[in-house]
Amino acid sequence: MSLYVLILAGGSGERFWPLSRKSRPKQLLALFGEETLLEGTLRRLDGLVPPQNILILTNADQEAGVRTLAKALPPENIVAEPAKRDTAAAIALGVGWVAARNPDATMAVLPADHLIHDAVGFQKTLRVAAAAARETGELVTIGIPPTWACPGFGYIEVGDTLEIAGATSGPPVHDVVRFREKPNAELAEQFLRQGNFRWNAGMFIWTIPAIRAALDAHAPELGAFVSRMGAGENFPSLLADVFPTLPKISIDYAVMEKAARVLMVESAFDWDDVGSWTAIAKYLPELGGGNVSNTALTALDADNNIVFSKLKRRVALLGVSDLIIVETDDAILVCNRHEAEKIKHLIARVPAELQ
Amino acid sequence: MSLYVLILAGGSGERFWPLSRKSRPKQLLALFGEETLLEGTLRRLDGLVPPQNILILTNADQEAGVRTLAKALPPENIVAEPAKRDTAAAIALGVGWVAARNPDATMAVLPADHLIHDAVGFQKTLRVAAAAARETGELVTIGIPPTWACPGFGYIEVGDTLEIAGATSGPPVHDVVRFREKPNAELAEQFLRQGNFRWNAGMFIWTIPAIRAALDAHAPELGAFVSRMGAGENFPSLLADVFPTLPKISIDYAVMEKAARVLMVESAFDWDDVGSWTAIAKYLPELGGGNVSNTALTALDADNNIVFSKLKRRVALLGVSDLIIVETDDAILVCNRHEAEKIKHLIARVPAELQ
Repeated sequence: MSLYVLILAGGSGERFWPLSRKSRPKQLLALFGEETLLEGTLRRLDGLVPPQNILILTNADQEAGVRTLAKALPPENIVAEPAKRDTAAAIALGVGWVAARNPDATMAVLPADHLIHDAVGFQKTLRVAAAAARETGELVTIGIPPTWACPGFGYIEVGDTLEIAGATSGPPVHDVVRFREKPNAELAEQFLRQGNFRWNAGMFIWTIPAIRAALDAHAPELGAFVSRMGAGENFPSLLADVFPTLPKISIDYAVMEKAARVLMVESAFDWDDVGSWTAIAKYLPELGGGNVSNTALTALDADNNIVFSKLKRRVALLGVSDLIIVETDDAILVCNRHEAEKIKHLIARVPAELQ
Repeated sequence: MSLYVLILAGGSGERFWPLSRKSRPKQLLALFGEETLLEGTLRRLDGLVPPQNILILTNADQEAGVRTLAKALPPENIVAEPAKRDTAAAIALGVGWVAARNPDATMAVLPADHLIHDAVGFQKTLRVAAAAARETGELVTIGIPPTWACPGFGYIEVGDTLEIAGATSGPPVHDVVRFREKPNAELAEQFLRQGNFRWNAGMFIWTIPAIRAALDAHAPELGAFVSRMGAGENFPSLLADVFPTLPKISIDYAVMEKAARVLMVESAFDWDDVGSWTAIAKYLPELGGGNVSNTALTALDADNNIVFSKLKRRVALLGVSDLIIVETDDAILVCNRHEAEKIKHLIARVPAELQ
């Protein structure tokens, strides 16, 4: 099988400020141990996809950081978008890039910044998804079984289970009934109770002909862009001149929600999008009193604090609770953990060189 | 006039951890601008007392730091106590040191770690106190007019005003009615209302004969130690062998409260003992919302925080109030400002090398 992978590594990662910066977003951070999330994403593909079949899409701010981490890839397999155009255009670019190399290939789209420990389960899931994509010619997505009624994710409502001849021993494959946008808390509870909803993690697998047909049908401007790339037009000028003019729309809105039929493979791996400092608390050592920290901690009458020290200095807490404390070479954040979602407003107030 | 000064620079300064350490207590910190409190204490004596007449008493932990800051003094004028014996023994050592040089001298005792900006008013007060000590032969103390009903200080109850021939233009000199220990809050309020109470700042002026007579009468073991020093006995062996055996008692208990008569000169200068992080808040720039900081601050929904960064890094606050945040090269403190008095218990829990 000839599998290609597009890794989307252009996220801004404001929610991990001050550790994250414009030039060093979440996927370039070693939040858990020594490995960055991007490195983990590449490592999980090891043995499944050869490096020359992997394309990383990033942006100018982050390009240098990505190149440093992805040295195993040919340099031309790392591309910086000249403008931020949301996921549909980014994916069209990736589809065109693969189409120019192998117009019949199968291709996966993966975010660079998710935390997944089970590489074996991950590869098994991708193999099933690829088999389903090839066997049916449909668009395939990966669904994560929800562990709680999170209102922050999109959901996938699933229907019948399908038999895929090429993947009889892997996780189940379902028909997608419909995609559901981020629900309110009540609806999310209902999704969880009903049991036939999965989280949409933004991972897709399809054949090049299938995604091209879908783009041509539902997003013709993007389909035309893919055709020009697939036909071998000059890539640098397409990137510099045409890409920035593409519509700014997500792949969910542009294609997935409009496609006649979509399949979903259930993930056979652990998954976390670790979207904020509060989300990483469960991966840091618990040092008593509900305080979690990646560094040495001394606490007195202090509980439920999240402490992250890039410099691994000792942090001492006295009489404080529910704080997020982050320190880096040049900035320190002390934040009420119940107001962490306002970090982006805080960042807007710090000098540009610290953003 | 031949004025000598003993500077007591042996305080532990735990309350400014993590900026302060055993080897770097309050008097060795530059809490306000570039000058340490000890340097300020020496600067205020400039022109009033020649460096060779100043003795600094410190301890082994702090000796190196003191020597670095007090380079203007002859090296033998900096003495490290081999053991902590409270103020009476430390002062006896200073009295003996002066007596060996000039048995009729006048001598002032000053703490190293107070914040006083008005050096002119300070010298004027010392001159009046020295004149009163010489003219009356009594022990003289300096009283600070209280600005609030602080229960944390000892108080001096004052009586009649005296005329001192040698100091007609300076601050008033009073008879001390009695010394009062730290009052409770209610009593402190009463002291403030009555108007005839002053704070005891631990500053004393006396002639050598006067303090020797008082020590001989009320603390004969200390008086005998002074006599041996005054007689020129070998100083290193007195310090190493006898000093550690002296009674551990404060000068207030040992002498001042027992003396038949004590005079008090009212301070003609601003004064603050800056005893804790909360006490320095009023000297740091106010950066909006009641947040004070010595470094660049970005605050959102955050107020009444005290921020001190030794490294002058940016600190960002989100949704937090009433915190003390201090960062140094090797430790960070985040503390509820209403629980700052517990810092000593916190320090007991950090590794020895950070204490």
